Amino acid sequence: MSARRYAIIGTGALGGFYGAKLQKAGFEVHFLLRSDYEYVREQGLRVDSPQGNFTLHQVNAYQRPEEMPSCEVIILSLKTTQNYLLPQILPGLVKGNAVVLVLQNGLGVEAEIAEIIGSERILGGLCFLCSNKTEPGYIQHLDYGQITLGEFVAGYQPGGITERLRGIAQDFEQAGIAIELSDHLFLSRWKKLVWNIPYNGLSVVLNARTDELMQNEETRQLVKNIMEEVLTGAQGWGCHIPQEFIQIMLEYTDRMKPYRTSMKIDYDTGRLMEIETLFGNPLRYAKKQGVELPKIEMLYQQLKFLESRGRG
Amino acid sequence: MSARRYAIIGTGALGGFYGAKLQKAGFEVHFLLRSDYEYVREQGLRVDSPQGNFTLHQVNAYQRPEEMPSCEVIILSLKTTQNYLLPQILPGLVKGNAVVLVLQNGLGVEAEIAEIIGSERILGGLCFLCSNKTEPGYIQHLDYGQITLGEFVAGYQPGGITERLRGIAQDFEQAGIAIELSDHLFLSRWKKLVWNIPYNGLSVVLNARTDELMQNEETRQLVKNIMEEVLTGAQGWGCHIPQEFIQIMLEYTDRMKPYRTSMKIDYDTGRLMEIETLFGNPLRYAKKQGVELPKIEMLYQQLKFLESRGRG
Repeated sequence: MSARRYAIIGTGALGGFYGAKLQKAGFEVHFLLRSDYEYVREQGLRVDSPQGNFTLHQVNAYQRPEEMPSCEVIILSLKTTQNYLLPQILPGLVKGNAVVLVLQNGLGVEAEIAEIIGSERILGGLCFLCSNKTEPGYIQHLDYGQITLGEFVAGYQPGGITERLRGIAQDFEQAGIAIELSDHLFLSRWKKLVWNIPYNGLSVVLNARTDELMQNEETRQLVKNIMEEVLTGAQGWGCHIPQEFIQIMLEYTDRMKPYRTSMKIDYDTGRLMEIETLFGNPLRYAKKQGVELPKIEMLYQQLKFLESRGRG
Repeated sequence: MSARRYAIIGTGALGGFYGAKLQKAGFEVHFLLRSDYEYVREQGLRVDSPQGNFTLHQVNAYQRPEEMPSCEVIILSLKTTQNYLLPQILPGLVKGNAVVLVLQNGLGVEAEIAEIIGSERILGGLCFLCSNKTEPGYIQHLDYGQITLGEFVAGYQPGGITERLRGIAQDFEQAGIAIELSDHLFLSRWKKLVWNIPYNGLSVVLNARTDELMQNEETRQLVKNIMEEVLTGAQGWGCHIPQEFIQIMLEYTDRMKPYRTSMKIDYDTGRLMEIETLFGNPLRYAKKQGVELPKIEMLYQQLKFLESRGRG
């Protein structure tokens, strides 16, 4: 058992799940909460999961980051729409050799955080997790849970596989969380966008489930066009994603149960959508290399319009 | 007064309006009707208009094209979604020196009709008309009414200003309809698409009025991007539309009253949208010249999806 202590910044469906798994495995975990603070401090955290249900009756709950003890790993699991809070939260928390592990969606978040705390102590992770927080302190884990971990390097060059990366991976695996290590975080992030950009965006704009988008000949082609643009954007940064990956993603989606994307759920429930990290940042990164992604730009423009207008 | 007789193929808000104006001015007009046939044969046609209300108590109404007498000008004013009927309708009607005047939306309809009756007797017209057919035989003219007329030439080369074009223009002007003559019908059609493509398409996909699209910074930019693609498509066919035309269209729309586009009205009322002539044909014409219009293509794909799924 390592002596690494973990801080969870954002105890929602994702941060709550991974934090609870780590604590259950014996790690010292400290949770930052907002709306659920009172409840969780008194009642703890409950996780229902196909891997086994459990409740943590006693958790270290905090309302303010300055009350938290110093931790070796600070897991960032806020939704990115909350990242405007980070200049207040992070500088006080990050001490000694502490690293920040960004378990957030989209592209470019690590670089934004590097502007606050420097680039040497940032790791990124891509979560393939299906979970909901349905009530205060109650997380329903539905499926998956694997994380791809990688080192952040300024300019998003390949970061290789470091010792600290392996150490954290070991902790997670000890907690029953499958880990894949990536020596090129930026490539991994672009790869995840191949699915996330078309399905999240179109599901909101066209009010559609994944199966509806796949069954219509025109939107199936549109999904493919948009995936090709993601590959083009990635290629501009030297991140090569093979063309066959598109076919794999399409077939994977064909086999999925009819699925309402997470952005569509955010939209339907009146929460802010993660438009900037999922769409805005990839567009801006592509543009830095002189690459235009017209259909992704149009999705971005349409989503910004829908978000600004509020919900039906 | 010319001896030209007019046939109106499609007696709706548009064909009914222009046909009634021509008859009122003394021309012999023959109307093809479907659902309104019984009513109009017995009650005639009523037009309410800021230019003056009038009723034609006696109109030549027909249910089947083969019953119609031969006319010198056959005005095509069906919605283009009905054009699959034309191979049945047109060959029997077109005799002698008769010309077909296509008063329909979008691009490429004349070329489709040329495959049925040859290209020598086809004229095209772009209507700037705001009218509704609210009840059988009852047309409410709200505003505008001007028509731009041009000769069709195979391959959409400039057709010049011909005698027959001037003759028909004279008839219309005698009926109080303002006419502009275009020596390059294809250019005029592309120009009209600069407005029609972005506003009609986005109003349906985003469930928005023109003023909403203009007030949001992102969709205003998107409208502009799409207008630029229309200019690119036109340029591929040697149809030069100056860049300033975009600014003129944007400012024109800024000054308009909040407006629900005709395609949005079609969508909301469960009628077929004119997707192929407004979006599909421009895309196909551009592609023939090797020109891709990605955002217009995406609009087309989104509209086809919405149409296939039926209405909310």
